[in-house]
Amino acid sequence: MNDVYNEQFLYRAIELANNNIKNGTGGPFAAVVVKNGEIIAESVNTVACDNDPTAHAEVNVIREACKKMKDFQLTGCQMYTSCEPCPMCLGAIYWARPDVVFFAASQKDAAFGGFDDEFIYTEIEKPKMERTIPFIQKPIPEGRKVFENWNNADNKTRY
Amino acid sequence: MNDVYNEQFLYRAIELANNNIKNGTGGPFAAVVVKNGEIIAESVNTVACDNDPTAHAEVNVIREACKKMKDFQLTGCQMYTSCEPCPMCLGAIYWARPDVVFFAASQKDAAFGGFDDEFIYTEIEKPKMERTIPFIQKPIPEGRKVFENWNNADNKTRY
Repeated sequence: MNDVYNEQFLYRAIELANNNIKNGTGGPFAAVVVKNGEIIAESVNTVACDNDPTAHAEVNVIREACKKMKDFQLTGCQMYTSCEPCPMCLGAIYWARPDVVFFAASQKDAAFGGFDDEFIYTEIEKPKMERTIPFIQKPIPEGRKVFENWNNADNKTRY
Repeated sequence: MNDVYNEQFLYRAIELANNNIKNGTGGPFAAVVVKNGEIIAESVNTVACDNDPTAHAEVNVIREACKKMKDFQLTGCQMYTSCEPCPMCLGAIYWARPDVVFFAASQKDAAFGGFDDEFIYTEIEKPKMERTIPFIQKPIPEGRKVFENWNNADNKTRY
């Protein structure tokens, strides 16, 4: 695993986050992806300006870096992010699989700015029906059948 | 909260998931967003064909529905998804805030198809440094300062 840390990249993420505030272009978050000591992608939070609740800095930078790499994996890459990733971004990071994530501010610092990621971490642990947004299973047999069809398909790309 | 269930929408999500397998265009997942009894967005998983590890059906359908609504919230909407959302999608759903999520297949069914969402749910609960992908905090003061700047900014859109 390549987990070498270089503070200049974390300062760069923070600079981008501050620029995003100054420019009024989104939330106070930014992230960069580094490979072989070079930044291959930089992104800021664009939730409000893109009307996209998934457009967090980490999700944006994963998309951008993967586009550059022409791959859906970030093997051999490091992510630097101005703030601790929220649960959505944590999930995105696990699917993208960079080698390591370095972050500066904590969830607590984010809460001080009015961003309550802790709430979602708590919700994940609740039984599905007791969540603020209920997740209700309708276990119709056709649901599982999809995965039988997938297992039997010849033309699939596993990811 | 509008949590009326209509099975035709769940069957539609499953149909789209099966089509995605047949067409070889992505993973065996699909989702639809419904408002006032009408589908406003339909999406499939496009991870492999878009080289985008975040392009799960739920994330795609949230992006699509928000674009249609010109909003970053899905208030008054229901999501129907062929399979239980992974942690990334759960997070995305919390940021988008539909009223309810209905799903057919379970995480266990997904595991049968080779999709190990359970792994990420387990990783979330681990101490950050013990995760398979280490999340390492470098608590430089400039990190928290970003949120002070945010709190002091006049031109921000809270989301």
